[in-house]
Amino acid sequence: MALPPSASTRCLLPLSLGLFQAALLFFFALFITYDEHSAAPTNSEDAEHAAKQLHSTFPFFQDIQVMLVVGLGLLLAFLPRYGLSALTHNFLLLNVSAQWALVLQGLLHRLHHGKALLGLHSMLSAEFAAVTVLISAGAVLGRTSPCQLLTMALCEVPIYLASEWLIITRLGVLDVGGTITIHIFSCYFGLGVSKVLFGNAKPTVHPKETPTPRSDLLALLGALILWVFWPSFVAVLCQPGDAQHRAILHTLLALSASVITTVLISILLESDSKLTAGHLQNGSLAGGVAIGAVADMHITPAAALALGSLSSLLCILGFQFLTPILAKKLALQDRCGIHNLHGLPGILGAVASIVAALLAPGDGSEAARHRQAQWQAAGLMVALGGSLLAGMLVGAALRLPCLAPPPETLCFEDALYFKLQERPSLHLHESLHSALLLHHCHRDHVKGSQRG
Amino acid sequence: MALPPSASTRCLLPLSLGLFQAALLFFFALFITYDEHSAAPTNSEDAEHAAKQLHSTFPFFQDIQVMLVVGLGLLLAFLPRYGLSALTHNFLLLNVSAQWALVLQGLLHRLHHGKALLGLHSMLSAEFAAVTVLISAGAVLGRTSPCQLLTMALCEVPIYLASEWLIITRLGVLDVGGTITIHIFSCYFGLGVSKVLFGNAKPTVHPKETPTPRSDLLALLGALILWVFWPSFVAVLCQPGDAQHRAILHTLLALSASVITTVLISILLESDSKLTAGHLQNGSLAGGVAIGAVADMHITPAAALALGSLSSLLCILGFQFLTPILAKKLALQDRCGIHNLHGLPGILGAVASIVAALLAPGDGSEAARHRQAQWQAAGLMVALGGSLLAGMLVGAALRLPCLAPPPETLCFEDALYFKLQERPSLHLHESLHSALLLHHCHRDHVKGSQRG
Amino acid sequence: MALPPSASTRCLLPLSLGLFQAALLFFFALFITYDEHSAAPTNSEDAEHAAKQLHSTFPFFQDIQVMLVVGLGLLLAFLPRYGLSALTHNFLLLNVSAQWALVLQGLLHRLHHGKALLGLHSMLSAEFAAVTVLISAGAVLGRTSPCQLLTMALCEVPIYLASEWLIITRLGVLDVGGTITIHIFSCYFGLGVSKVLFGNAKPTVHPKETPTPRSDLLALLGALILWVFWPSFVAVLCQPGDAQHRAILHTLLALSASVITTVLISILLESDSKLTAGHLQNGSLAGGVAIGAVADMHITPAAALALGSLSSLLCILGFQFLTPILAKKLALQDRCGIHNLHGLPGILGAVASIVAALLAPGDGSEAARHRQAQWQAAGLMVALGGSLLAGMLVGAALRLPCLAPPPETLCFEDALYFKLQERPSLHLHESLHSALLLHHCHRDHVKGSQRG
Repeated sequence: MALPPSASTRCLLPLSLGLFQAALLFFFALFITYDEHSAAPTNSEDAEHAAKQLHSTFPFFQDIQVMLVVGLGLLLAFLPRYGLSALTHNFLLLNVSAQWALVLQGLLHRLHHGKALLGLHSMLSAEFAAVTVLISAGAVLGRTSPCQLLTMALCEVPIYLASEWLIITRLGVLDVGGTITIHIFSCYFGLGVSKVLFGNAKPTVHPKETPTPRSDLLALLGALILWVFWPSFVAVLCQPGDAQHRAILHTLLALSASVITTVLISILLESDSKLTAGHLQNGSLAGGVAIGAVADMHITPAAALALGSLSSLLCILGFQFLTPILAKKLALQDRCGIHNLHGLPGILGAVASIVAALLAPGDGSEAARHRQAQWQAAGLMVALGGSLLAGMLVGAALRLPCLAPPPETLCFEDALYFKLQERPSLHLHESLHSALLLHHCHRDHVKGSQRG
Repeated sequence: MALPPSASTRCLLPLSLGLFQAALLFFFALFITYDEHSAAPTNSEDAEHAAKQLHSTFPFFQDIQVMLVVGLGLLLAFLPRYGLSALTHNFLLLNVSAQWALVLQGLLHRLHHGKALLGLHSMLSAEFAAVTVLISAGAVLGRTSPCQLLTMALCEVPIYLASEWLIITRLGVLDVGGTITIHIFSCYFGLGVSKVLFGNAKPTVHPKETPTPRSDLLALLGALILWVFWPSFVAVLCQPGDAQHRAILHTLLALSASVITTVLISILLESDSKLTAGHLQNGSLAGGVAIGAVADMHITPAAALALGSLSSLLCILGFQFLTPILAKKLALQDRCGIHNLHGLPGILGAVASIVAALLAPGDGSEAARHRQAQWQAAGLMVALGGSLLAGMLVGAALRLPCLAPPPETLCFEDALYFKLQERPSLHLHESLHSALLLHHCHRDHVKGSQRG
Repeated sequence: MALPPSASTRCLLPLSLGLFQAALLFFFALFITYDEHSAAPTNSEDAEHAAKQLHSTFPFFQDIQVMLVVGLGLLLAFLPRYGLSALTHNFLLLNVSAQWALVLQGLLHRLHHGKALLGLHSMLSAEFAAVTVLISAGAVLGRTSPCQLLTMALCEVPIYLASEWLIITRLGVLDVGGTITIHIFSCYFGLGVSKVLFGNAKPTVHPKETPTPRSDLLALLGALILWVFWPSFVAVLCQPGDAQHRAILHTLLALSASVITTVLISILLESDSKLTAGHLQNGSLAGGVAIGAVADMHITPAAALALGSLSSLLCILGFQFLTPILAKKLALQDRCGIHNLHGLPGILGAVASIVAALLAPGDGSEAARHRQAQWQAAGLMVALGGSLLAGMLVGAALRLPCLAPPPETLCFEDALYFKLQERPSLHLHESLHSALLLHHCHRDHVKGSQRG
């Protein structure tokens, strides 16, 4: 299992990618047509409407693309020797998962409505399905091969679609920003995968896992990009108008409170009052995770602030205390700490949505509010339990040796996946040169002193 | 004062952040409600209007967030060992200042209109207030603790709000892009702080202050991001329609002329015709600072080009000649050169607005034009003098030892604020290894030659 | 020619930039006025229309600015010691070319319509003209001085405008995303320049040309930024409504297929199944180049996927096989591989547009479809042949010694254009220190053993 990949496993990745792309092409050719906005319009009002829909959706869509491709990619680049691989695997997974989600959505739509339509909205849904894969992959970052990650993507996307259908469509759970359906789901799915994939082997800490100031800076940059565009992620699926306004305002407030609380708590936890870069990279985003389920409700701005503060408190306490305990007691590996960024704040957000449903003002009767609160709780249970179970099953599948898991010594190492130049770096080259110089000086010196 | 922080000062930062966040939460809970766009609409026309306001404002808002969080943060990362701290302090200051501005604006609005409203527009105003703090902090970058910076923020935001009210509301100064109210104000405020905080101590130049090619590349990246999104900053508060068009066009032209002039002047000033990275990072943005006060007027495209050229000329001459003089004669420390990027181009822009007011075409009488020009001049004086005075007072407050100023030897050093890994870097490790190898070879060689 | 620049050549760059900026200012002052959106509106309907035009165009415009300034700049920073120069030359070229294009467009418009108008739309056209210069410069990256690049820009922009007028306005070629007019044109123009400029000298490979993992990461980041915003580039000039929808969807699909195919092919080509970073940086964008000419047509989503796959296949095969052949047989230098990213996928896209014109559904008669296909083919020929010829002429002009070509030993070296600190890097410093330490230990040890 720790050997370099054999010829057959080496061909597996290109072969499966090729088959995937060919099958997809075939499916698209047979089934997929344009939706009402991208097909030729029948009248000028339709054209006007199509233009309007594009201008109101596309900027959000672009923001989300920046988050996933650039922001999340950089956030994962905190491993100093694994930056290229982290960015690339994230990028590949995003594209495979989104295309796969387009196909599955198309099939489902075709079953129900007779045709599979493509439009900006279905692209967006596919993007959301892909997000779950990218989050789950954080738990096993650096210790999994592309083949394992792609297998995970192929399994996770349909399970997500089923879970999302059950939670949103059937149970009627309110979750505009994906707190329950995306964050909780993907977190426990990823943890399930990690647990079964790595079994009870105690995780050894590679020195290569320790971030350098340079890699921490890149990861912080990624976190800042995610932080800036997070409101678009939460608000894109809101009703235009006041609900979308509230979603944006609440997310901005929650994220802002998260930053302050993160700095506060991170400094308090260190004996010499220093910040931990990892806390900042994750804690400042926790508010965005938690606010999702209640972002468009009338929860008051103060509640958004409180939720942001609480979620980053949970996130950092998770990093400090819960992750070591889980690693020790359950031998659970969670490389990026997705449980702290997506799990704990997600649960907090789900609980907040239960409370918000109970206290909701407006015209609903008390019975209706109680029912909604129960649905929210049921959604939380389904997302958490279902994903954990499904993740464990998928984790078992990922143990197949043909998926070419990386050998232990080459984990967290770009050189395993990238053709890198073997030549010494310029710095090293120069220092070698100077060392050689010293060596020669020394030899002459020694020779001289021997002669003397 | 140069000792490592004691236990009491160590607790000051988390304590004050905690109190701040708690007080804010309390205030929000008591007073703040949604504005007309984010509250539930009373009719469908309101909803339509809310959606429209969001789609016309939010993309600009996001652009400005990218500028402040990513662009400005990276621009400050030119200090090679202070990148994490520069990005983080900038990020923290932005959030604290913006929340603080929301509270103060809310209080003022409540006094006048009976309630404090929250919406995208008040978020934007709070963001602008925060910008002044971020700019002022550039003067003292690397030599101030987070406690000092936060104290500065708490003082500067209300002073800015008062100054902005006086200049815009009372005097009726035209300044759509914040040349006078933001750039001039924050620059002289920061210089006042720096002067009184550091007194007459001649600034010693740390070797850690010298940018490396790598840190210069990051800072250049930050400058490019600021450059790209600057038109959004200038145009966001314009009247939609032709005024906003003009603001964007003028800013694009001014910024473009700045780039060419910057390269031209920077090369001319060096005896061997080389560019200075710092000139490029600042000079190419100078046009954006200067154009703000006149951006939406009918100044003609040629004037925008000329203003962009002139402002970057001033900026680079400032770096080359004025900054050394100010450092020598006044012992004035201005780490990022904010006087060259915000002060000089700001004054140029203010003067341009006086001229533009005098020459304004249109229906105004000559007397009205003269009056407007006088208001512009008065606004410049108020912003410049008031901020300098206020900054000096705040600088005196920042001398309090309990604010834990960084010891001289640890200035410009991430290790003071971040828990960094102490292990040797991988490069160093490898070069050590090779040096050891040489050492052993050598020893054997010497032994052999001794035997022979 | 390989000597350091003399006093006269040293003044050439600032002098010519100064003259350029002065002449431009003069021209703007004399001729340029606001267009109908930025001039004062005559009625409220005009104002409404101006606001609408801005909100529908400006976000696309900003996306394209990010692509050109940040994305393309970083993509060019793959040379480890030339990052600052690559970013800066790209930035300077963009601004000079865009201003130059504004002037030429203004002159042409004035000739035909009596006045030269400035607006967001003319800015966008100028931006597109500048793109061609930035692409062409990729062929000669690192081996050309700023004077040479600026001379190239001054020549290329009018040739592009003529070519674009001939292809789009006269021939009526359909090319909404610039596949033929921008990508093919600029690629063969750049190759023509490179061929004649460097003659038959066999390109020697500098060790400085080899990317490091760090510079590859920056370049990958640039490619990801280009990838994210590419749909805006293709769709900005489309008719709002369904055509713009289709353009965005097709570009998204083509780019997504490109990523998967790139990984697939790049791994297949390496004996040990490793990815080549350069393949990823270019191949994942190839789909965006190819789709441009057909993006807004009814080509079906499957065709967009197929085009994306095929184009990245061509791109990577080009890097692997064609580039070495061209270098060997024709001594053709193409530093960034623009032939692989813009040439081959561009031709594929042009061919696709011929096929699409032939097969176009709708109301056109068969004769009309045949005629359109012929125009597409003619456009391809004109763009390819014309640009190659023009590029070769310009390349001859760039051989002038007064343009200060960089000496061979200082190619790919920031130190030639930037004032960099000469001090040893901190890493090197530390390793030198440790080597010295060892040296002393050793000496003592040797001395001891000699005494013993």
